[in-house]
Amino acid sequence: MNIHGQPWRTIWPETDGESVGIIDQTRLPHEFAVLTLRSLADAAHAIQSMQVRGAPLIGATAGYGLWLALRADPSDTGLAHAHALLLETRPTAINLRWALDRCRAHLAPLPSAQRAAAARALAAEICDEDVAINRAIGEAGLPLLRALAAQKKSGARLNLLTHCNAGWLATVDRGTATAPIYLAHDSGLPVHVWVDETRPRNQGASLTAWELLNHGVPHTVIVDNAGGHYLQHGEVDVVIVGTDRVTAHGDVCNKIGTYLKALAAHDNGIPFYVAAPSPSIDFSIRDGLREIPIEERSPREVTHLTGRLDTGGLATIRVTPDGSPARNPGFDVTPARLVTGLITERGVCPATAAGLAQLFPDRQ
Amino acid sequence: MNIHGQPWRTIWPETDGESVGIIDQTRLPHEFAVLTLRSLADAAHAIQSMQVRGAPLIGATAGYGLWLALRADPSDTGLAHAHALLLETRPTAINLRWALDRCRAHLAPLPSAQRAAAARALAAEICDEDVAINRAIGEAGLPLLRALAAQKKSGARLNLLTHCNAGWLATVDRGTATAPIYLAHDSGLPVHVWVDETRPRNQGASLTAWELLNHGVPHTVIVDNAGGHYLQHGEVDVVIVGTDRVTAHGDVCNKIGTYLKALAAHDNGIPFYVAAPSPSIDFSIRDGLREIPIEERSPREVTHLTGRLDTGGLATIRVTPDGSPARNPGFDVTPARLVTGLITERGVCPATAAGLAQLFPDRQ
Repeated sequence: MNIHGQPWRTIWPETDGESVGIIDQTRLPHEFAVLTLRSLADAAHAIQSMQVRGAPLIGATAGYGLWLALRADPSDTGLAHAHALLLETRPTAINLRWALDRCRAHLAPLPSAQRAAAARALAAEICDEDVAINRAIGEAGLPLLRALAAQKKSGARLNLLTHCNAGWLATVDRGTATAPIYLAHDSGLPVHVWVDETRPRNQGASLTAWELLNHGVPHTVIVDNAGGHYLQHGEVDVVIVGTDRVTAHGDVCNKIGTYLKALAAHDNGIPFYVAAPSPSIDFSIRDGLREIPIEERSPREVTHLTGRLDTGGLATIRVTPDGSPARNPGFDVTPARLVTGLITERGVCPATAAGLAQLFPDRQ
Repeated sequence: MNIHGQPWRTIWPETDGESVGIIDQTRLPHEFAVLTLRSLADAAHAIQSMQVRGAPLIGATAGYGLWLALRADPSDTGLAHAHALLLETRPTAINLRWALDRCRAHLAPLPSAQRAAAARALAAEICDEDVAINRAIGEAGLPLLRALAAQKKSGARLNLLTHCNAGWLATVDRGTATAPIYLAHDSGLPVHVWVDETRPRNQGASLTAWELLNHGVPHTVIVDNAGGHYLQHGEVDVVIVGTDRVTAHGDVCNKIGTYLKALAAHDNGIPFYVAAPSPSIDFSIRDGLREIPIEERSPREVTHLTGRLDTGGLATIRVTPDGSPARNPGFDVTPARLVTGLITERGVCPATAAGLAQLFPDRQ
């Protein structure tokens, strides 16, 4: 996607041949800063501190993290250590395990001297695949948006609501939930996006809004509490979100609060779609509520917020009383019954075991 | 309620006989500051800027605002002007109109020389009534909590979830939704309250948490997105919220986001109660979604937050990108079908026309 007219991805191998560049997402929307990852520790820190985040981008970063690790220690021990260290950075998104297992299976049989170069090539391949997947998700989702727009008065804008950031910043490029939105906008469909701010880390207010603003897509930031009201009043035509893990039966784990929007969409008869690239689908589990580990993050993300002062600098403020404890679950699970459909790179399917099996017979 | 061991109300006539004291709720939880209202303009500003807020406290402040107005101009014109000015400060809470109409009906027939003193006495009466109503709501709600606690393992804490602040800061004293909670805690029932932070103004994080902390009630602050997850996982036994207006058919208007929690409680078979003092019940309307005006507040409440810096002072930060618009509806409507019961000062009733008619035959 473009930033100030220049095309960017969220992660890239640097031309020095020994490091990886990322956009530091913890500084957006106030500062656009690039970071260089030079080691396994840098990559693990980038994932854990959410300098990179979003299930697909976490997977891609893990791929490059293995490369950086193997440059320093290409032994079996080095590979096992890097795999284990990266795997424990974030527990919920399945893309992380998917990317790490794929890389390990490819790299382990190789002589250690070849591993680093192979890891770099595979990480680049994972990134290119992600972009291709997201392009396909966009093309699969676009007809859904066109059909919804056709039900509206001619020229009326199509109102979408999204939660968190499943935009290009959550992937290598294009985004998952945003892929159909960008395609629709670029093809002249008048779209408008309600952007949930997505507390506690405000990825909607800070990342999705920034993306849409840079791309010129009309949007409005709202607090997470407001979406139900707009759904009740006919001001949302469709909800599209991303996912960190979909089960074989179609349960959807995504950013905390997604479940509440799915309930409200269902209560008002509004379609609720999940953009689900296949690396986010975990065919090994069925019941999302019981089987997906929910990451519990620091209470400080609830009690404190960072933003820009009028004078220009960034500042962190406390919003709760000293002495009041906080809890911070990072994700929730939306039961498959509330999901209208999954938009995958192979097309759209119902959020059911049968629906997924039909699109992914090779993964059963 | 007590602050640092001293009993306080949220509003009181000052001993100078010509002004009214309030707690400045815009500075909590970081600073406890008292303000003096000396004029109609001060009272209107206090309501509009949310130095006082909460439907019952808005009504009480309007009562004292009329007194301050009539001290300066006790004429018919003065009364009509003050009534109109105060009425337009906030559109959603019905208590404001209830208090203003009640005062006008009482004061208009009096000779102008007697009006100010009568207004002061009536405002004090409204305040005392509010405290009595909340005491009765507490007594009506306590058996519900006891019954829920009896279904749990002996000694297990009863987990409540509340949204926004329907605590003593929203009333003259005791609170509405919190009245049964304080009674339960004081009577030895082990309660724990999940406190929704309640964006955009964070009345949960800044007011409810502060209240509960001061009173020693165990509680945990969570983002508004998290309640659905805890409801899914059996970590909430009951939801209790306040209201700004209940219709004759039991629809409940309350702080934006309440509807989402009602949906999640319903989806998980968890009781959802609304503490509804009778001045909050609007028997003149039926359909909350169509008939209750929803206040739209400044987008700045979404784009900016105020809190305390580590260095001690208060600061305001921007969390959204410059150029991204925001919308800020203040309330939503929870359909009666999602409400388990209304806890009023006359007892608990179903959220139906018949239920309300049985408790309030005199209001039909």
